[in-house]
Amino acid sequence: MISILSDFGLEDTYVAAMKAVLHTIAPSEKLLDLTHDVPPGDVMRGALELWRIAPFLPSGTVILGVVDPGVGTERKAIAFRNDKFTCVGPDNGLFGYLLDEKALISAVELSNKEYQMKQASMTFHGRDIFAPAAAYLATGVPLTEFGPHIEALIRLPQPALKIEDGGVIRGEILYSDRFGNLVTSIGKLSRHGSILVCDPWIGENKLREIKTPDPSISLPDGSEIKLMKAFGDVPEGSLTAYIGSSGLLEIAVNSGSASESTGLQRGDHIELKP
Amino acid sequence: MISILSDFGLEDTYVAAMKAVLHTIAPSEKLLDLTHDVPPGDVMRGALELWRIAPFLPSGTVILGVVDPGVGTERKAIAFRNDKFTCVGPDNGLFGYLLDEKALISAVELSNKEYQMKQASMTFHGRDIFAPAAAYLATGVPLTEFGPHIEALIRLPQPALKIEDGGVIRGEILYSDRFGNLVTSIGKLSRHGSILVCDPWIGENKLREIKTPDPSISLPDGSEIKLMKAFGDVPEGSLTAYIGSSGLLEIAVNSGSASESTGLQRGDHIELKP
Amino acid sequence: MISILSDFGLEDTYVAAMKAVLHTIAPSEKLLDLTHDVPPGDVMRGALELWRIAPFLPSGTVILGVVDPGVGTERKAIAFRNDKFTCVGPDNGLFGYLLDEKALISAVELSNKEYQMKQASMTFHGRDIFAPAAAYLATGVPLTEFGPHIEALIRLPQPALKIEDGGVIRGEILYSDRFGNLVTSIGKLSRHGSILVCDPWIGENKLREIKTPDPSISLPDGSEIKLMKAFGDVPEGSLTAYIGSSGLLEIAVNSGSASESTGLQRGDHIELKP
Repeated sequence: MISILSDFGLEDTYVAAMKAVLHTIAPSEKLLDLTHDVPPGDVMRGALELWRIAPFLPSGTVILGVVDPGVGTERKAIAFRNDKFTCVGPDNGLFGYLLDEKALISAVELSNKEYQMKQASMTFHGRDIFAPAAAYLATGVPLTEFGPHIEALIRLPQPALKIEDGGVIRGEILYSDRFGNLVTSIGKLSRHGSILVCDPWIGENKLREIKTPDPSISLPDGSEIKLMKAFGDVPEGSLTAYIGSSGLLEIAVNSGSASESTGLQRGDHIELKP
Repeated sequence: MISILSDFGLEDTYVAAMKAVLHTIAPSEKLLDLTHDVPPGDVMRGALELWRIAPFLPSGTVILGVVDPGVGTERKAIAFRNDKFTCVGPDNGLFGYLLDEKALISAVELSNKEYQMKQASMTFHGRDIFAPAAAYLATGVPLTEFGPHIEALIRLPQPALKIEDGGVIRGEILYSDRFGNLVTSIGKLSRHGSILVCDPWIGENKLREIKTPDPSISLPDGSEIKLMKAFGDVPEGSLTAYIGSSGLLEIAVNSGSASESTGLQRGDHIELKP
Repeated sequence: MISILSDFGLEDTYVAAMKAVLHTIAPSEKLLDLTHDVPPGDVMRGALELWRIAPFLPSGTVILGVVDPGVGTERKAIAFRNDKFTCVGPDNGLFGYLLDEKALISAVELSNKEYQMKQASMTFHGRDIFAPAAAYLATGVPLTEFGPHIEALIRLPQPALKIEDGGVIRGEILYSDRFGNLVTSIGKLSRHGSILVCDPWIGENKLREIKTPDPSISLPDGSEIKLMKAFGDVPEGSLTAYIGSSGLLEIAVNSGSASESTGLQRGDHIELKP
């Protein structure tokens, strides 16, 4: 299976052009759209979505990711393998959060023109370089065929997440989803009435358990929200917080938009207090 | 085939997460996206879209429907069979208009955790409960394996539709489609210059034929529109009405938006006069 | 493979209805969405997208195209073959730019009701006439079965493109893509520091090479932009121009929207000066 994420949107035929190339080279591969509506050029959002979906993708999946504001400039085109996936795209951090969870096995720069479209364009490497590479990798061409080995990949900064000695956890807003739910950098697995905080960007070895029967979340304006189990646990129109489906703390309004009602944006800080 | 309808939109990876689960459990099943752009939490619109598409889906299709504002609360997770489909989703009326056409054969509550994702989240049953159930049902697991039998499903109110003795038909606006065409609750099959009115939500046994060579539609502001065959039958920019592709009366503007030009919204009443 | 382009959007189940029909008649065919977000009724934009994606579609593809503001009126429903594709849709110019590149082999009017849905609607030929025809054609039903041969298809006007004796090339804005990049009618293949201009709407036989090491683009407000290789070659927020991935001159803002910052729209004229 080849899974595809991009910021191309669906109103043009950019995504279709990539799929036509994939289909021509690897006609028997299934294609799965992860999303194509990453905000234009928002590499961090793309990286977060890849991190979020990764646990549900079957082993062996080829991930074709294209959020690529530096296309046609010096940034490298790359492919790499970790213990679960093969990834193809720009070397700009897009796969950075994915990588934090799994060891990198091998990475190459995509320089071999035999596995590119003839006369590759300067502005659409998704179609001309990345899609052919993803398709050839899916059909079994060895990674080493595509170009020289590279050591390190570009990384994005880690989302803010700090656990204070007093038990206060400081995090930040990462993004608003389709429902206006604000996804934060604070990760948790609920167990036995205590909060198990981990830094999802580093790995589960940095777990820390904080015993608290009744935590609350402080917003920048000073208001406080109690942690609930689901957004349906508060009346319609009320602000609430809960651990979302990716294990991250989310702030939401039942049947409304927390993004609109709070005005909070990426990078705004929040605190979880025991 | 597994057909999927949701209000998740395509800008996040929620839909992709459901598909990844479906693919992992039932890799040979075809997936058909019905729509994922039901307005957030709009169960009635989801129910109308399922009613609209149902006649075109092959027998044996598994329908995975997730418009689920009550996720994580008391509402049940269900699966059921009628004589054509197997449906999986929340028990909130989403499948209610579909059900009115075909007899319910059997329904269960999805309580067996063997057919759910481990540590199912409180806010994403689409991925953790409904998608696994849809996939296992598609691979042949019997309905009775998923949980206890339930008798009755939650129903939505029927759209307003009343046929007066004088031949006047009172209905309401149901929604505006992508083109700004206003879909109404008045159903009809045109025959021989007369109007054959049926209550599509009840079944064809409530048909009623009204002979009229030249019916007109009254809007709440008192204006009247003649019934035409297609929106192209009036000049560009003109308001018109016709029987749409689902057999429901629609109000439209040729090359424009009736939703914008009339301001009519769901629940606004209209009349069809002989 | 059946490739589908429409202006139906994805918020209703119109596209799904077409796919359900395709799947029922031709269950083993792969489906490729080209785009469904052509602006409502914008036949020219649909024609440009088909022209743009065509070089990447495999030979033998059936193209189902539905941008059809005249549905239910006098316009014909057609299918035709050229040396690469079979196309099905309305006879309104939608396939016109595609046709200019490849000789038309045979065209018919879709009048045989045996290959249509029973009681075809007046407003949804995509589902009731075009999708069944595309599916039956994909399964091998001969073109001549569908209706009488027709000679000529409706054509759209050619986009403005004129090469003056002084070497100035006059063109126009065609549309803005998802990123706000303005795609123009000026076609080019870059070679050896000179500009190779061709009229992409007529064919490559009208190539003309203009030697210039440093061309610039004049906008209607008198401002001038230098031709670069990629949008990343200028600082963020700066206006630039380059040859886009379809071989057409594009005007863009690095990490911004040229459509918003220039206000240019379809039909506005630009000049490329040596």
